[in-house]
Amino acid sequence: MESQQQLQGPRRPARIGICGLGTVGSGTVNVMARNGEEIAARCGRPVEIVQIGARRDNPACDTSALNISREIFDVAANPDVDILVELIGGTTVARELVLTAIRNGKHIVTANKALIAEHGNELFAAAAKKGVTIAYEAAVAGGIPIIKSLREGLVGNRIEWLAGIINGTGNYILTEMREKGRTFDGALGQAQELGYAEADPTFDVEGIDAAHKLVIMASLSFAIPLAFDRVYTEGISGITSEDIRYADELGYRIKHLGIGRRTEQGVELRVHPTLIPESRLIANVNGVMNAILVNGDAVGPTLYYGAGAGDEATASAVIADIVDVARTLESAPDQRVPVSGVAEGGQNGGDVLPMDEVVTSYYLRISAHDKPGVMSQVARICSDQGISIEALIQHEPADGEALVPVVILTSRAKEGRLRDAVAEIEALDTVEGDVVRIRVEPLG
Amino acid sequence: MESQQQLQGPRRPARIGICGLGTVGSGTVNVMARNGEEIAARCGRPVEIVQIGARRDNPACDTSALNISREIFDVAANPDVDILVELIGGTTVARELVLTAIRNGKHIVTANKALIAEHGNELFAAAAKKGVTIAYEAAVAGGIPIIKSLREGLVGNRIEWLAGIINGTGNYILTEMREKGRTFDGALGQAQELGYAEADPTFDVEGIDAAHKLVIMASLSFAIPLAFDRVYTEGISGITSEDIRYADELGYRIKHLGIGRRTEQGVELRVHPTLIPESRLIANVNGVMNAILVNGDAVGPTLYYGAGAGDEATASAVIADIVDVARTLESAPDQRVPVSGVAEGGQNGGDVLPMDEVVTSYYLRISAHDKPGVMSQVARICSDQGISIEALIQHEPADGEALVPVVILTSRAKEGRLRDAVAEIEALDTVEGDVVRIRVEPLG
Repeated sequence: MESQQQLQGPRRPARIGICGLGTVGSGTVNVMARNGEEIAARCGRPVEIVQIGARRDNPACDTSALNISREIFDVAANPDVDILVELIGGTTVARELVLTAIRNGKHIVTANKALIAEHGNELFAAAAKKGVTIAYEAAVAGGIPIIKSLREGLVGNRIEWLAGIINGTGNYILTEMREKGRTFDGALGQAQELGYAEADPTFDVEGIDAAHKLVIMASLSFAIPLAFDRVYTEGISGITSEDIRYADELGYRIKHLGIGRRTEQGVELRVHPTLIPESRLIANVNGVMNAILVNGDAVGPTLYYGAGAGDEATASAVIADIVDVARTLESAPDQRVPVSGVAEGGQNGGDVLPMDEVVTSYYLRISAHDKPGVMSQVARICSDQGISIEALIQHEPADGEALVPVVILTSRAKEGRLRDAVAEIEALDTVEGDVVRIRVEPLG
Repeated sequence: MESQQQLQGPRRPARIGICGLGTVGSGTVNVMARNGEEIAARCGRPVEIVQIGARRDNPACDTSALNISREIFDVAANPDVDILVELIGGTTVARELVLTAIRNGKHIVTANKALIAEHGNELFAAAAKKGVTIAYEAAVAGGIPIIKSLREGLVGNRIEWLAGIINGTGNYILTEMREKGRTFDGALGQAQELGYAEADPTFDVEGIDAAHKLVIMASLSFAIPLAFDRVYTEGISGITSEDIRYADELGYRIKHLGIGRRTEQGVELRVHPTLIPESRLIANVNGVMNAILVNGDAVGPTLYYGAGAGDEATASAVIADIVDVARTLESAPDQRVPVSGVAEGGQNGGDVLPMDEVVTSYYLRISAHDKPGVMSQVARICSDQGISIEALIQHEPADGEALVPVVILTSRAKEGRLRDAVAEIEALDTVEGDVVRIRVEPLG
């Protein structure tokens, strides 16, 4: 009967309140104004912005006809708001705001990866208790519908692993280093000039931002709780043009990847620079673009590519979430897609594999004195740790340098054993300084 | 109240009936058996196969514990079936089957691109009248969640254009021709040996299969009715290794694309071989893989890549649809994603731009006698039609050949004017045979 009734008349508008009017907030206001009619047709009802909470206006969007409050908590308390759209960023006030809105029975749409990665378990539980939903497509990889693809599109699969270029700043820097021969610092400076990198770039180049996104994707893919504190994170600030060039010569590209993988012993969660074969599609994702490669047991490899940031690209994901929630405002909670990807009680414990237990291959670069016997010493150390050498290239020393760069590709080995081998190599008289070590993934 | 009740107890299983036990049918049975527990956790309820309709068993899957009928219409009549999964293929019996099931109040999941492309408007209307849904993710690009991405993930966008490699057979053939220097016939034979191409390959290599998929994607992207009979379709059987090589030299790859684009004058719907810049990610999609590049006004370019066919890859999409429908069995129709992407009455007329009006660039290959004046004649003809020549390369004639292959890249021009120019060029005394003409798209 309900269905017949609902078919008869137009549905009341869904009423949203937007908190935060920065880049994504203004992008959302602009896209909703521009495409409002088409969005309503696709949603099956109009979507109205009934309030905006923002400390100040943003000249990037016209809010003259909209109801603005300088106090964001007004939006969480507004009885006319069905869906609170959290775009303020940060984790302290944002967490309070979202919890307050949930208590007031509002659905949540958020673009806040740190909030979900660090407080998602708590927020999801609060939402479930209250029978509201939290949507967070915009938290990962901007406009790419990766959350929807993992949670709905690939729902029939046991997802075996995923690997993503999920930080545009880092990918821009690595691309510039490779294509223009820039140093890390030079490429970073360029990224800062173009507005791709912050004045303090730590968050992006050290992999923290990528780790946030990785844990969100891993939680959905492997049906485990969000475990931000369990991610192994290594940045790209140590990557040199030299290593990029040597990798190229071997047929590889260096990309900063977030990798999640199921193993018998637990889930791998790691962010680090990685050599990947140049023939892989994801190896050819350049500049600020993002891409995620997902391997399901039924579907095989699939890849999702697009802009990982930007006002309207992120707004695209925010609006997709708004429409999903708006369409199902009257639905029972169990008719909606579960927030964590599985119905209550469906998550497994989510043991995370310690990094020492991770098995992968390695690129090593050793600075060696040009003396007989060095290679046999290195080979013996590797062999003692059960590590085979798949390729070894001795390069010409740089002008005026006595040290010879030796590049090695190893067989697959446990990280712990490789680390022991590296320590022994570094202790050799014939080797100078630290051994450069970058992981290698075939992604095939 | 309803929501509280639903939260309290486990939900009854969703009951599906599968018609057809070929490649996709057996893949679906196998994946559901293997991943059933995880699928139930993600769906929020178990999904049970209560009946299979198939003329014969398929040794590729174990159906010994399942209820099989040799009469597929039994499934459409079975009162225990909530969702009929149509995997028989074809358009005559399949249409009858689906209409019967709809009349009996069943939801439909189908992998049948021809059925949707040719009879979708009728079937969608029947389903809307009855308040049931039709899901067809598996009809386009196998396991790639492109329908979901277009209809839900990019819902905030005005989609401007899309271009897809949506026939794996054709892409395999073009890849083999380029990478191994094979002729079209040689590559086709290879594809047939490997089971990638049918004994009669017309459907794949002449673009009919791609046209089916294109109209489905275009209907969702541009909110227009399905218009299979309006697609311009050109196959790849005329592509030579020579053209692939010349394109390579110019920095292009030749791909068989399905292209849809909004213009002020109407929607472009066309399937044809296309030169695309090698720097585009989609230019590097090789072998039997599929990929769709979608450009939205907010999100910019996004790309979706994966296996376009195969038992379990297609089953992945079938199961995603089953779960979507199963989760929302109790939902009012307007709480579900609209079958055509827009709520009733939301489609626009969908004027299709006649091919003569389409504006694009062209690769032309002319076989000319090596005499003075040929080039100036060709240039004058183009100029008279308002077409500029962006590049012109005169190649060495093949051994023992008197004719010189001349390759031209043109500016953007209306197809009709280009065709007139080509006819004039072909009429020149100094030109032999037909001019080869392949469209060029920057996709940027």
